[in-house]
Amino acid sequence: MSESVYIGVDVGATKILVGAVTPAGRILSSRRFRMEHETQERTLQSIHLALETFMQDWNGLLPRAIGIGLVGQIDPLTGTWLEALNLPIESPVPLAGQVHPRYGLPVALDNDVHAATLAELRWGIGTQSNDFIYLNIGTGVAAGLVFGGHLLRGAKNYAGELGHMVIQPDGVPCPCGRRGCLEAIASGGGILGRVRDEIGNYPDSILHSFKESLTTEQIFTATDAGDTLATKISNDAIQALGIALANLVNLFNPEWIVYGGGTLSDGWLIEHARKSVETEPLSMIRKSLRGILSSRLNTERVGLLGAACLAMDMEGIT
Amino acid sequence: MSESVYIGVDVGATKILVGAVTPAGRILSSRRFRMEHETQERTLQSIHLALETFMQDWNGLLPRAIGIGLVGQIDPLTGTWLEALNLPIESPVPLAGQVHPRYGLPVALDNDVHAATLAELRWGIGTQSNDFIYLNIGTGVAAGLVFGGHLLRGAKNYAGELGHMVIQPDGVPCPCGRRGCLEAIASGGGILGRVRDEIGNYPDSILHSFKESLTTEQIFTATDAGDTLATKISNDAIQALGIALANLVNLFNPEWIVYGGGTLSDGWLIEHARKSVETEPLSMIRKSLRGILSSRLNTERVGLLGAACLAMDMEGIT
Repeated sequence: MSESVYIGVDVGATKILVGAVTPAGRILSSRRFRMEHETQERTLQSIHLALETFMQDWNGLLPRAIGIGLVGQIDPLTGTWLEALNLPIESPVPLAGQVHPRYGLPVALDNDVHAATLAELRWGIGTQSNDFIYLNIGTGVAAGLVFGGHLLRGAKNYAGELGHMVIQPDGVPCPCGRRGCLEAIASGGGILGRVRDEIGNYPDSILHSFKESLTTEQIFTATDAGDTLATKISNDAIQALGIALANLVNLFNPEWIVYGGGTLSDGWLIEHARKSVETEPLSMIRKSLRGILSSRLNTERVGLLGAACLAMDMEGIT
Repeated sequence: MSESVYIGVDVGATKILVGAVTPAGRILSSRRFRMEHETQERTLQSIHLALETFMQDWNGLLPRAIGIGLVGQIDPLTGTWLEALNLPIESPVPLAGQVHPRYGLPVALDNDVHAATLAELRWGIGTQSNDFIYLNIGTGVAAGLVFGGHLLRGAKNYAGELGHMVIQPDGVPCPCGRRGCLEAIASGGGILGRVRDEIGNYPDSILHSFKESLTTEQIFTATDAGDTLATKISNDAIQALGIALANLVNLFNPEWIVYGGGTLSDGWLIEHARKSVETEPLSMIRKSLRGILSSRLNTERVGLLGAACLAMDMEGIT
């Protein structure tokens, strides 16, 4: 098995990471590409170009298969990209069928959070636990739910949309059509959007100095420095995340919550929400939660590892 | 298999139902007993007395095993009743170990909602779907989560506590310690409690005429008749249930939601919440929800059937 290699393609809303991964989880080579996402056509061109460039430069073993992790809704059985809230996918794309003939290799497709969760199951917390939640907060919020050692996919592979759990029924509007969704309050996109919406009312906020380059990390730092606007937005995010995770723990009785990169990468947000998650669920459920911890996998690479896992799973590599 | 019989004991907060059930799901005999729940001792005496009385009167085939479904938290591996919010279980009870020597039969224990969900899986919607949510609203609220044909138990068998999903973070206090839990707003106990708390402010409410005998059905009827207090409490319950179920659909991507008896038995509450559940989840998830329907199993007997399922599952009867 050490003599085989799989290609992973991690497609995000702003970048594409392509790499060659061994069944032991070693990344032999990887490269980051820009996602041009003005239209559906440009989005797909970006993916094809990234993969093609990587494959042309790759001079190692012939890969066994290609796995692609994508934002949004995917039908893994037909290899179709159905929908994405953060990218302009306006009609279903038979992406596996488009990629397969170019390289003559099997192609597996899935949601990026499912993919990262499979990496966590194969090389991360899954090596010691069968019941865990993998939490990902970036532009959006999603959860990979693993029970009895299996990823919970639901009827049509869409399970895990934690971001659209309503936390404040009269809260801020969410692009999904509801109000007060976790994603609108506590995701990177939600936090930045709320600062943009409210900054006009806070002329003295130090966040004015960052302008277009503002990041959630800067907002958290400004909160620690006592900035009123940053504190308000951060506190709402902390409270919402605490409520959502305590709800999730009551629903699933997980042994671990493992979190990945993006908005959670510096740990600030989840460390502030930790107390709620550890104290608010029902007592027996709370007691069986062993911990909330950062993934041992490289958070910048877990999407790539997950995409490669899709290819390995398809080929039956254990 | 038609020649064997299993004893089911459905232990609720106010009554105990004991019966003899065949592997085909036919109830050969059943009897209802009163639950005296003033203390932990009285509670346990009620269960032992109910089972003993039934077994003395039973003159059919020798049962193969006994299954007991209980409110609260159960460790099925050790047969221990750990905790119950609605009954005074103050220290863990090794109930399977207490019952086994009295009858010389294997004894299986589990949560009553897990038990009902196993009945649904064996004889109800599970005969046509592998991915469904079984919803139970009575004194409390709980959900049985079935994915890939398996009941989701979580790390320690406590999964499914939908009642403690927070819907209104600044809402009414819940006995669990949080505020605005679904159970405090939309369960039978929650609805009746809120009417009791608020009726003093509504001197003209027709609910005054029911006094201590008030039921949720009467509150729903009063709502249809335009009673202001009833309408307020019912609308809060409808909204909370709609939000919780839409959240749940986004998280699990189920194919069906099946509901049982108790507060849902006349369908009023869930029919009013139906629109939210069918329209609010993300589009692809919404589209893969095939329906929300009443269990085809007798809602008065599903707990008993479920308890018998525990015994059949333990014995490997399929």
